[in-house]
Amino acid sequence: MAKHSLEEVLHPKSIAVVGASSEGHGSQFFSALIDFGFKGKLYPVNPKYSEVMNMKAYPTVKDIPEPVDYVISAAPAPQVPQILQDCIQKGVKGIHLFTARFSETGRKDAAELERQILRIAKEGGLRIIGPNCMGLYYPRLGIAFQPQFPKESGPIAFASQSGQAAGEIIGKTTQRGAYFNKAISYGNAIDFNECDFLEYFASDPEIKLIMMYIEGPKNGSRFFNILREVTKTKPVVIIKGGRGHSGTRAASSHTASLAGATEVWDTMISQSGAVPVSSIDELVDVAVSFYFLPPITGRRVGVAAGAGGATVLAADQCEEAGLDVTSLPQDIREELRSQGIQIWDWIGNPADFSINMGDANFSPPQLLKMMAKHPSFDLIIASIMIPGVMGGPPPGRGAPPWANPNIPIDDIVDQYKQVNDYKPVLGLIPDRSPGASDNDDAQEAQRWKTICEVGAKLINLKIPFYPTVSRAANAASKVIGYYQTRER
Amino acid sequence: MAKHSLEEVLHPKSIAVVGASSEGHGSQFFSALIDFGFKGKLYPVNPKYSEVMNMKAYPTVKDIPEPVDYVISAAPAPQVPQILQDCIQKGVKGIHLFTARFSETGRKDAAELERQILRIAKEGGLRIIGPNCMGLYYPRLGIAFQPQFPKESGPIAFASQSGQAAGEIIGKTTQRGAYFNKAISYGNAIDFNECDFLEYFASDPEIKLIMMYIEGPKNGSRFFNILREVTKTKPVVIIKGGRGHSGTRAASSHTASLAGATEVWDTMISQSGAVPVSSIDELVDVAVSFYFLPPITGRRVGVAAGAGGATVLAADQCEEAGLDVTSLPQDIREELRSQGIQIWDWIGNPADFSINMGDANFSPPQLLKMMAKHPSFDLIIASIMIPGVMGGPPPGRGAPPWANPNIPIDDIVDQYKQVNDYKPVLGLIPDRSPGASDNDDAQEAQRWKTICEVGAKLINLKIPFYPTVSRAANAASKVIGYYQTRER
Repeated sequence: MAKHSLEEVLHPKSIAVVGASSEGHGSQFFSALIDFGFKGKLYPVNPKYSEVMNMKAYPTVKDIPEPVDYVISAAPAPQVPQILQDCIQKGVKGIHLFTARFSETGRKDAAELERQILRIAKEGGLRIIGPNCMGLYYPRLGIAFQPQFPKESGPIAFASQSGQAAGEIIGKTTQRGAYFNKAISYGNAIDFNECDFLEYFASDPEIKLIMMYIEGPKNGSRFFNILREVTKTKPVVIIKGGRGHSGTRAASSHTASLAGATEVWDTMISQSGAVPVSSIDELVDVAVSFYFLPPITGRRVGVAAGAGGATVLAADQCEEAGLDVTSLPQDIREELRSQGIQIWDWIGNPADFSINMGDANFSPPQLLKMMAKHPSFDLIIASIMIPGVMGGPPPGRGAPPWANPNIPIDDIVDQYKQVNDYKPVLGLIPDRSPGASDNDDAQEAQRWKTICEVGAKLINLKIPFYPTVSRAANAASKVIGYYQTRER
Repeated sequence: MAKHSLEEVLHPKSIAVVGASSEGHGSQFFSALIDFGFKGKLYPVNPKYSEVMNMKAYPTVKDIPEPVDYVISAAPAPQVPQILQDCIQKGVKGIHLFTARFSETGRKDAAELERQILRIAKEGGLRIIGPNCMGLYYPRLGIAFQPQFPKESGPIAFASQSGQAAGEIIGKTTQRGAYFNKAISYGNAIDFNECDFLEYFASDPEIKLIMMYIEGPKNGSRFFNILREVTKTKPVVIIKGGRGHSGTRAASSHTASLAGATEVWDTMISQSGAVPVSSIDELVDVAVSFYFLPPITGRRVGVAAGAGGATVLAADQCEEAGLDVTSLPQDIREELRSQGIQIWDWIGNPADFSINMGDANFSPPQLLKMMAKHPSFDLIIASIMIPGVMGGPPPGRGAPPWANPNIPIDDIVDQYKQVNDYKPVLGLIPDRSPGASDNDDAQEAQRWKTICEVGAKLINLKIPFYPTVSRAANAASKVIGYYQTRER
């Protein structure tokens, strides 16, 4: 089988940054490669300087004495035709054009310049990523376009037409413990486009899960043909930017994309077996779920999500997301009765923490474990009962032993691990909101520290977490939908 | 006009807490009243103690030598009939039964006990709030059921069938700077029910905005008749718990409510002019919007919500929420051109921060201000450009002057104040999520401190804020829908 054309371009042994300097955007890319520890050779190119960041600088790519595989251009648009000619003469394989101000400006001369650079590249056999994009994040090779990206690798691949969206999505996904093999921000996509990236990710055995942000697909029919094949073995989660009139207008100013035609798009995405999402938070939720959860094909969920009204709303929201909040099976009730649990006939699914208070020694995790062991349940959604934290047991005097605020965090987390041993668990941990109350308050700081520790421990146990029941249930439902379609 | 029956019950000059002790639930209510500074007389009642928290305790309500207006019962259910008889003899006006374990248990004897206490109260002229609820939060009188509730008052009234939901909603709403006149958790509602609370809030001139959490309305036709009247002058935002099969089951175990029949309910709510919502976050978003925004009746929104993909998705999400992301008017473009702004033909609505980078001295708030002054716009949704914070200007070298990370917070906030002088602004400030990265990191701590300071300053300026564009747009759309209906 022939190597994919991206394989060589994305594995450079040497990189030159045109426009590298000690300030401005050129510096941003160059210093990110240094900070991130790129494993190959690195060359600054700038006719204005003899040195950049203590490294010898070259006036042009042609002046570099050794071979150059990959070039990042942060030079102004009018210089790009000459830079491409230099790259072609030098035998460069691929160029990432961070350089923008082409067709996305809506100006005729800029669009003509874009057509010209594509002609030059095609004739010279040079491949282009971009223009108007952030390029490559490939932690294993030490390549990143933002120095604060994690250095850890994982099995996710991500192609994003937006550099901003790529940064935000990479930040939020890795914060939830899911890591990337590679991510590519590809902007105006005049050469490599969404089809090439998808095809390449499909062929790479290291990649198990694909995320995409697309504004204007360059070749819809080819894209859907590839997509139908890929989704048979790898989940693909896709967000479309430019769904409505104003979004289409914004996409045109952003990446010169012809977005629109959303109805056709949505139908095609669903029919291809991919998972469509409509916000960045939803994209991250679904990706994190695929990352950590096994293939779940049933919709019967056991839930514990707080007390009283929170329980009622959790049931509603799970059901509205397409999950089946099944009744507590009679044999579980009989078992509870035989154990002398007084609330055997009152407690149900979702497990209500305030009903659980009625039997001081019978905790919600105990009930969750019984549901997890029972063949009537496929998955569990459970708030992590951090004492005093929303969704956790009520604070204050009179709390039962299982809601003791002094329970060690490890014991709390271990309760969920025991549930997770039988059925996949989706955890619930609240976000923190700014506002009126004193956020420097010592109690609040301690509470947040505990929440963060629990989050980190869940990641280690491969238990995904979500800030609300709605978001957990929606992500679970989409993951289950994917595996159900694949099974058929 | 006759005084509403709740007026006297909710304005006690003296309160007795039956079951008060130095630990357990009785202590929770009693100590909350002490901590909160109840302005009347306070009596602990408990036959087991001669003193509770350094105050003389009485064996029964009847033993208190002075008049008692209001009683809170935290005693076990079997004692309630006798407590009611004592209250009636003492001339008590209202009793809040925190005491639970009645019909919500699904047990016949408990349901019979509940019917019995209602009979006793009716015969004796004693009014009941509850049972199975948290009762009253009335900061102006120093009454609260959780000591950490804010002592500030505002024009919101809130009736909640769930005590947990009441606590969570009060916490989240006040954190966003919107305060309560009074809130009542009313549980099983065997005497006072949703109709009484709504009618009373309607008649109170201090109350401008009403929030409700309802599981099972006790008297649907009376409720909708009152609702149709109230919504002509005061917005009413309602969340229904128990919408689906499993939620209905959970509502029955929670407050013995006959929930269900959601389709009829939804239609009735909409036809009555009230605003239905389906999650606690949405309830809080909409309430905060009514609290701070003037009556907006147009849907044309000017948006600035970050760069690139964030801009495209912001446009999509505003449109999907029912707002009109109108094109940048030609006369604004001409004005920009006459000012020598190079991006006059490229920049649009939403304003893209990355396009704005192309004209170093022309900032997104400047464009927002031009939109706010223009008659083509009704409202503005704007991310608060905290340097380095998501949705803010890109960090790093090469940033234009308006994205200088050293801009004082007051200057940032002042830019939005200037926009808000012309059209109502909905601000965007991100929540904080726990997870893999080091949350004790000094840079992250500083970032969060800045976010909190900006949030507090926006509250002072009466500018509401939201964690995402979707949530801001949805809340705006519901508020506009309310005022449009009212106008017709």
